[in-house]
Amino acid sequence: MQPKLADVAKLAGVSVTTVSRVINNRGYLSTDTKQRVSAAMRQLNYQPSSAARALKGKQFKLIGLIFASLENPLIAEVVEEIEDRLFGHGYKAIICNSKDNPEKERQYLKMLVSNQVDGIITGSHNEGIDEYRMSGLPIVSYDRYFQTQIPTVSSDNYAGGQLAANTLINKGSKKLLLVSGSLESKTPNNLRSTGFLDTAKDKGVTVNHLKFPFNTTPTIKRATLKDELSKKHPDGIFCTDDLTALLCMQTAKEAGLKIPEDVQIIGYDGSTYVQEYHPELSTIVQPVSDIADMVVRLLFNRLQPNDEKLLDQYLLPVKLLQRNSLRE
Amino acid sequence: MQPKLADVAKLAGVSVTTVSRVINNRGYLSTDTKQRVSAAMRQLNYQPSSAARALKGKQFKLIGLIFASLENPLIAEVVEEIEDRLFGHGYKAIICNSKDNPEKERQYLKMLVSNQVDGIITGSHNEGIDEYRMSGLPIVSYDRYFQTQIPTVSSDNYAGGQLAANTLINKGSKKLLLVSGSLESKTPNNLRSTGFLDTAKDKGVTVNHLKFPFNTTPTIKRATLKDELSKKHPDGIFCTDDLTALLCMQTAKEAGLKIPEDVQIIGYDGSTYVQEYHPELSTIVQPVSDIADMVVRLLFNRLQPNDEKLLDQYLLPVKLLQRNSLRE
Repeated sequence: MQPKLADVAKLAGVSVTTVSRVINNRGYLSTDTKQRVSAAMRQLNYQPSSAARALKGKQFKLIGLIFASLENPLIAEVVEEIEDRLFGHGYKAIICNSKDNPEKERQYLKMLVSNQVDGIITGSHNEGIDEYRMSGLPIVSYDRYFQTQIPTVSSDNYAGGQLAANTLINKGSKKLLLVSGSLESKTPNNLRSTGFLDTAKDKGVTVNHLKFPFNTTPTIKRATLKDELSKKHPDGIFCTDDLTALLCMQTAKEAGLKIPEDVQIIGYDGSTYVQEYHPELSTIVQPVSDIADMVVRLLFNRLQPNDEKLLDQYLLPVKLLQRNSLRE
Repeated sequence: MQPKLADVAKLAGVSVTTVSRVINNRGYLSTDTKQRVSAAMRQLNYQPSSAARALKGKQFKLIGLIFASLENPLIAEVVEEIEDRLFGHGYKAIICNSKDNPEKERQYLKMLVSNQVDGIITGSHNEGIDEYRMSGLPIVSYDRYFQTQIPTVSSDNYAGGQLAANTLINKGSKKLLLVSGSLESKTPNNLRSTGFLDTAKDKGVTVNHLKFPFNTTPTIKRATLKDELSKKHPDGIFCTDDLTALLCMQTAKEAGLKIPEDVQIIGYDGSTYVQEYHPELSTIVQPVSDIADMVVRLLFNRLQPNDEKLLDQYLLPVKLLQRNSLRE
């Protein structure tokens, strides 16, 4: 039997009105009250949006998608594939570009919860935001960890990092450069770097490591890469995203370096866009279609529980797309 | 004074319930009834969503964005800039990728209307869909015409086509190739081709014209372009979108042609993405930020009428971004 609002109120030791205010995020509420209501909701597996909708006799069929930026072709592709699958279920997608800004993300979550979305799919950079826990909504994450029990789908980042290092080393690179994000937030994404560094260490190959915070502009990245290439002369580069790998290729060419003779370059992501429009870039390809499938299936499994046996975490295999930025 | 539901019903000669059913797209309604209600709503400038919301005492603050595909970086950028501005007004964006599929677009419009979105911004390829007229919602279009009085924002496509032709001809091209969409749907977009063809004709330069229907894959485009380059030997190419221009550059290089010595290439769109990650491509740049500004201002001017004097049509200036795919 489905738990009721009154059950949550009883367990939390507050009034039904207070539970409703927590769910709808309205009015002043102490942190203690919010936490008690949230704990009770979790314990009872109470789904506020479906209950609220049932009361109203109406379904809005809206899913919030929180991602950092559509300007990354991989994210645009993931969002488009998710939207297409949601449409197939009669659901619509509200798009939220968080721009790696915790405040924007927090405001969006409030808007989404008070707007009665049925669930949230998030691939944004900020973790540990209270509103995620407080929302009480079904949430599924792509390539992000959360403190609470939120199902996660990601590509096998660690294996991808290993594959990149093994490929460069086997093809003769001896001075490696790793270019990644800042590694400050604890995202599965960081495992790309860890896998790369672990493998290089095992094989006794030295690695310089450049870290770019999320909002670093392409111009700043180019200037930094140019300096790095001229001072350190790496002969093998792994960038943990394709966009930075493209900047690396440009910078290397401008510096008069031959790719792959002088320097091999390998990226990560492998969106259809990059595969089609940057045919020279070798990259570790994420299975975008499988990722979209799984986040949507996990979400609907929470919205309309069925017998399907699903895992809490999916680590999907990656593959190497070899092109001219790597030696034969 | 704001028109009421009863005023619409009286003018259309139907009951208030019928008007409500037309607005909410519920139950069976004859085409004749729908048309009469729709005509009455237009005549009275009746805004159903705001009235319906007022009745409920609740605003959802949702705007539907209907665009062909996020996989085009220009569209991703326009959508992201619109979303950011809507967020600033406390509104959320529902994203609909129509994939140039009239049936998907039609279903989306029904979902949007019954879901009580406050307005729609559309840049999709399909025009003349009845639901647009029937929705009675404030609609603003980017680069699309509609039969009814829907405000339109677009870049000055005709001037862009002229600029492309003049540039190629002034820089010495004598055998031109124009690569465009199918020109079947009447979009402002087609004016890029018209401007190009008119200018070439004025200057007595011949033009071959390749047309690709919307859903042509990159692989098919490449094969067709390869054939065209080998048979017709154009020395100046204008593609009416950057993605096709990138394929042109790849194909020309693979055919052993030197850019810009053997063939000059110029695209259209100039998204930030293409500017940053394809630094070799010359292109006609659309003012994306101004476009996003204007569609959002036009929409809010209809949602919350104010004194601001706005035009029904904005034709925003383009500029040439000259890079290495053009001679000095």
